[in-house]
Amino acid sequence: MKSHRQELWFEIPSRRGLVNITGDVQEAIRQSGVQEGLVLVNAMHITASVFINDDESGLHQDYERWLEKLAPHAPTSQYLHNRTGEDNGDAHHKRQIMGREVVCAITEGKLDFGTWEQIFYFEFDGRRRKRVLIKIIGE
Amino acid sequence: MKSHRQELWFEIPSRRGLVNITGDVQEAIRQSGVQEGLVLVNAMHITASVFINDDESGLHQDYERWLEKLAPHAPTSQYLHNRTGEDNGDAHHKRQIMGREVVCAITEGKLDFGTWEQIFYFEFDGRRRKRVLIKIIGE
Amino acid sequence: MKSHRQELWFEIPSRRGLVNITGDVQEAIRQSGVQEGLVLVNAMHITASVFINDDESGLHQDYERWLEKLAPHAPTSQYLHNRTGEDNGDAHHKRQIMGREVVCAITEGKLDFGTWEQIFYFEFDGRRRKRVLIKIIGE
Repeated sequence: MKSHRQELWFEIPSRRGLVNITGDVQEAIRQSGVQEGLVLVNAMHITASVFINDDESGLHQDYERWLEKLAPHAPTSQYLHNRTGEDNGDAHHKRQIMGREVVCAITEGKLDFGTWEQIFYFEFDGRRRKRVLIKIIGE
Repeated sequence: MKSHRQELWFEIPSRRGLVNITGDVQEAIRQSGVQEGLVLVNAMHITASVFINDDESGLHQDYERWLEKLAPHAPTSQYLHNRTGEDNGDAHHKRQIMGREVVCAITEGKLDFGTWEQIFYFEFDGRRRKRVLIKIIGE
Repeated sequence: MKSHRQELWFEIPSRRGLVNITGDVQEAIRQSGVQEGLVLVNAMHITASVFINDDESGLHQDYERWLEKLAPHAPTSQYLHNRTGEDNGDAHHKRQIMGREVVCAITEGKLDFGTWEQIFYFEFDGRRRKRVLIKIIGE
């Protein structure tokens, strides 16, 4: 069994933002030499998500607006968590809706994906360096 | 290490619908010959979910109603995504709540499940052929 | 390839409650002898979640309140599922928001985690014995 580990680093200049990381994950698979296996891609921070959906900017704006409705940033006093001095209570909630991680199949050395599947990093509390873990196992 | 790959195809006759795929996943595990390992089951489309919960029709109707409340289909103009000519903006949101994939343990050649765990395909934008990927790794 | 299987049992004295199980998962990894691999941690019941976030009590109360808003327990008659004689319709919904499982990387024999990542069991229908499955594969 082979294994491979890699980190991706991000510094999103605003509070929230999306990055398509499909190419980075595919490149990590190539480097691993794994032909058949699984790849785990997860946010290493608890105010960010990794998820799979469409690379369509209208949809991304829809998600942004929808998550703000389900877990609004303001007023920050609505979150007990913010009594710790943080203002990111909402980010911990948004991340639960969108998820921490994805697990994807590797077949014949490639991401085994449907036509429209793309992997995204979704930042909910940016303006600092944060990272994603890629872990690959297989043969 | 062994690996096994299989697709399940669906054509749900209405916009939304649920299918219990537990038996199909168990059959794929049997075919793989894997005794100890992991099985990934994921929607290959971005307007459908694979999730684990109870096989109880009342609950399935509750989910349907709840998801419609959290991300209503109409008016379709509320989603920027629908400006692309689609009317499935809601489906991309519902799928995020219910999830893309499940990862399950295989122990002694079987799904290692609690009493009530069942795997479902949840379609949010049906009336066309769509598929689920099963990927098994182990020994 | 090595594999290891373990169950954790809980009896939460109230309807809802959170338990940090990070140490238990780390101990299972140690017992498995796996240095490089993946660990799956999932609720074996369909009214509980396993998720990763911050070990901060204010945040945990925020989650409790937020989930109660998204899927209220009462009135119990709002869930068709409760016609089966249950009163846990809400628990099946809350669990979908927080998720069934997490998959984590094992690197050099340890959970490969960001600084603040902690694994929790989240009970939504307690006052009885329930369990979590840990399945480890790797080398």
